[in-house]
Amino acid sequence: MGTSGNFSTVMSWRPLCIAITPSGVNKGLLTAQQIVQVDAQGRTLRGLGRPSDETRLHLTLVRLVHAEAVLHTHSIWGTIASEVHAREGGVFIEGYEMLKGLHGVRTHEHRECLPIIENSQDMVALSSQVRYTLEKHHGAHGFLLRGHGLYTWGRCLDEAERHTEILEFLLEVIGRREDCGLAVRKRQHSRNRPN
Amino acid sequence: MGTSGNFSTVMSWRPLCIAITPSGVNKGLLTAQQIVQVDAQGRTLRGLGRPSDETRLHLTLVRLVHAEAVLHTHSIWGTIASEVHAREGGVFIEGYEMLKGLHGVRTHEHRECLPIIENSQDMVALSSQVRYTLEKHHGAHGFLLRGHGLYTWGRCLDEAERHTEILEFLLEVIGRREDCGLAVRKRQHSRNRPN
Amino acid sequence: MGTSGNFSTVMSWRPLCIAITPSGVNKGLLTAQQIVQVDAQGRTLRGLGRPSDETRLHLTLVRLVHAEAVLHTHSIWGTIASEVHAREGGVFIEGYEMLKGLHGVRTHEHRECLPIIENSQDMVALSSQVRYTLEKHHGAHGFLLRGHGLYTWGRCLDEAERHTEILEFLLEVIGRREDCGLAVRKRQHSRNRPN
Amino acid sequence: MGTSGNFSTVMSWRPLCIAITPSGVNKGLLTAQQIVQVDAQGRTLRGLGRPSDETRLHLTLVRLVHAEAVLHTHSIWGTIASEVHAREGGVFIEGYEMLKGLHGVRTHEHRECLPIIENSQDMVALSSQVRYTLEKHHGAHGFLLRGHGLYTWGRCLDEAERHTEILEFLLEVIGRREDCGLAVRKRQHSRNRPN
Repeated sequence: MGTSGNFSTVMSWRPLCIAITPSGVNKGLLTAQQIVQVDAQGRTLRGLGRPSDETRLHLTLVRLVHAEAVLHTHSIWGTIASEVHAREGGVFIEGYEMLKGLHGVRTHEHRECLPIIENSQDMVALSSQVRYTLEKHHGAHGFLLRGHGLYTWGRCLDEAERHTEILEFLLEVIGRREDCGLAVRKRQHSRNRPN
Repeated sequence: MGTSGNFSTVMSWRPLCIAITPSGVNKGLLTAQQIVQVDAQGRTLRGLGRPSDETRLHLTLVRLVHAEAVLHTHSIWGTIASEVHAREGGVFIEGYEMLKGLHGVRTHEHRECLPIIENSQDMVALSSQVRYTLEKHHGAHGFLLRGHGLYTWGRCLDEAERHTEILEFLLEVIGRREDCGLAVRKRQHSRNRPN
Repeated sequence: MGTSGNFSTVMSWRPLCIAITPSGVNKGLLTAQQIVQVDAQGRTLRGLGRPSDETRLHLTLVRLVHAEAVLHTHSIWGTIASEVHAREGGVFIEGYEMLKGLHGVRTHEHRECLPIIENSQDMVALSSQVRYTLEKHHGAHGFLLRGHGLYTWGRCLDEAERHTEILEFLLEVIGRREDCGLAVRKRQHSRNRPN
Repeated sequence: MGTSGNFSTVMSWRPLCIAITPSGVNKGLLTAQQIVQVDAQGRTLRGLGRPSDETRLHLTLVRLVHAEAVLHTHSIWGTIASEVHAREGGVFIEGYEMLKGLHGVRTHEHRECLPIIENSQDMVALSSQVRYTLEKHHGAHGFLLRGHGLYTWGRCLDEAERHTEILEFLLEVIGRREDCGLAVRKRQHSRNRPN
């Protein structure tokens, strides 16, 4: 979708080096040479492209959650959830079997909180807000940037992809369910009183 | 979607042996060797993977409904319907031509009940709840596990696939129709009174 | 979707012979040999399959509207529209540029009526109801069978396909718009009064 | 979708010559020879097809906004937004990260106005309405024709495609969000008062 979304994987931990998608490139047309490798300060070590504007956020995340892979998507339902639930500070997801696809979750009775963080173009401020939020929501598997999209991660690229699929699925279920639920409750309500 | 969904087919009835998809594997990347064969007690007879966590449910079902194939899907609309209609105990589907694609149904005037069963991680309890529910809803072509997904079956894999397609189609129609119907009723209502 | 939908084309007018899709076959797996040719009474002239249960309806239609091709689809939005607007007797579509894709329509100011006919398994009764309805709605480009799907046609297969695409597009627009319009009107309403 | 949509690119500026898709052709089956080249008055210079009925609009646009490429799409959500927001005269899009994919936009805090123009079959009147509207909404990246679709453009074909993807994405987000937002507000409302 446009040039949206980005992802990174850790190449080495000591010293920290991550491979990250370049800025301003259509991800469907991405070639291997365009992937850039950056150090802990975000300086390019290898590759020709300009690292993603959100490189600092990726560096913050890999250190904070010890993730080997970080994925960021711009989806319809992620964007909607981030706006509709902004006042509540997060999306609470509970009671779905699909939650079991998240690392460490063993039952649908799990309550996942996906915190919502105000979007910002100031990557220093945003990184520190992300650090603050994730320390508060220890154990979260991802977060939403408001009006922007989903960040999630994993111990390997496969796990990060699975987390993306699962969280996007659940955000769609929740988004669509708000309507249906409303309609059904309305119908039940109008049945219960004289017409 | 993640590693969700599973399916089984009967290899032999006496002694009972079913082939079933393995646990924790991306179904899009499934290879023939990963399919496992298990006996009536769920013990692996052949294959390297770990049989699906829901193997017991499949074994219960094939015996109960004499199905040659059982399919279980995790869909958006199945999940939504299982939550929105939970209080009513099932989804009632009536008046649609597509119902004729279900085995034994000859007219759209058929009323199909898709019972909703509370989800559980205890496969013994869940299997016995499924047995109880299907004995009550004799003739049902499938059921929903709440917040989890659809189970359906058939006399062969083709029929089970057709049942899946038809029930998923109808669950989507019903889910989307709740909204539209509400909107239209509201509009008619506001036309009927002075504005 | 299951074995749903069917289509026919006229092979000759005198004597009338149409080619039609067979009954109970997955249309995605259809082979040329399965297409059957039937005469004006619906008797098979050529081909091995059983002609569609709705053959009589196709024969009625080709004679009534002088169509070379008749397409029948089972879509989500067609099914929903046929239920939601059943009381009004039809779906009225007006003001959309896409209407210009229908044969003979030159402006978006056209008002298309897609009549809704009660579904029936009695093909004799249904055919006569279709004839009665289309004589009343002269110039209609299609109709909906309630809870069942859309019938449309054209002077050639290309035109019938274009009509299908356009009507399905407009039914989706109308279905989705009911919701959005409701939401916007509600929002405007609550702005206009003290909260 | 049917024969809908069209696009043009500038071949030379002095004298003005644009290449444009032909009228009445299924765009999925378009061949290179069907593309026609027309001069500033819309007269065919090269190619066998009949230039799109909306050629005059493309000529007006390339001169007005100095675009190298103009794309016009007929989408579900574009059509819906053009109707639902018609009274407000435009769709206002604000606070989304995806806005940064529009030329010259550096922050999600940007407020994009997509003006809505009444549809017309009179291309002279419509072109002059488009000129009037875009002079008023200087800096707009596109506009909607009511009940018809989206026009957007770019300094090259890639940019015009990116603008199309971004605006269509945002129109879908806004269309779906109207519902969800309504449902959530209703739920919150009913929680706040005794039931």
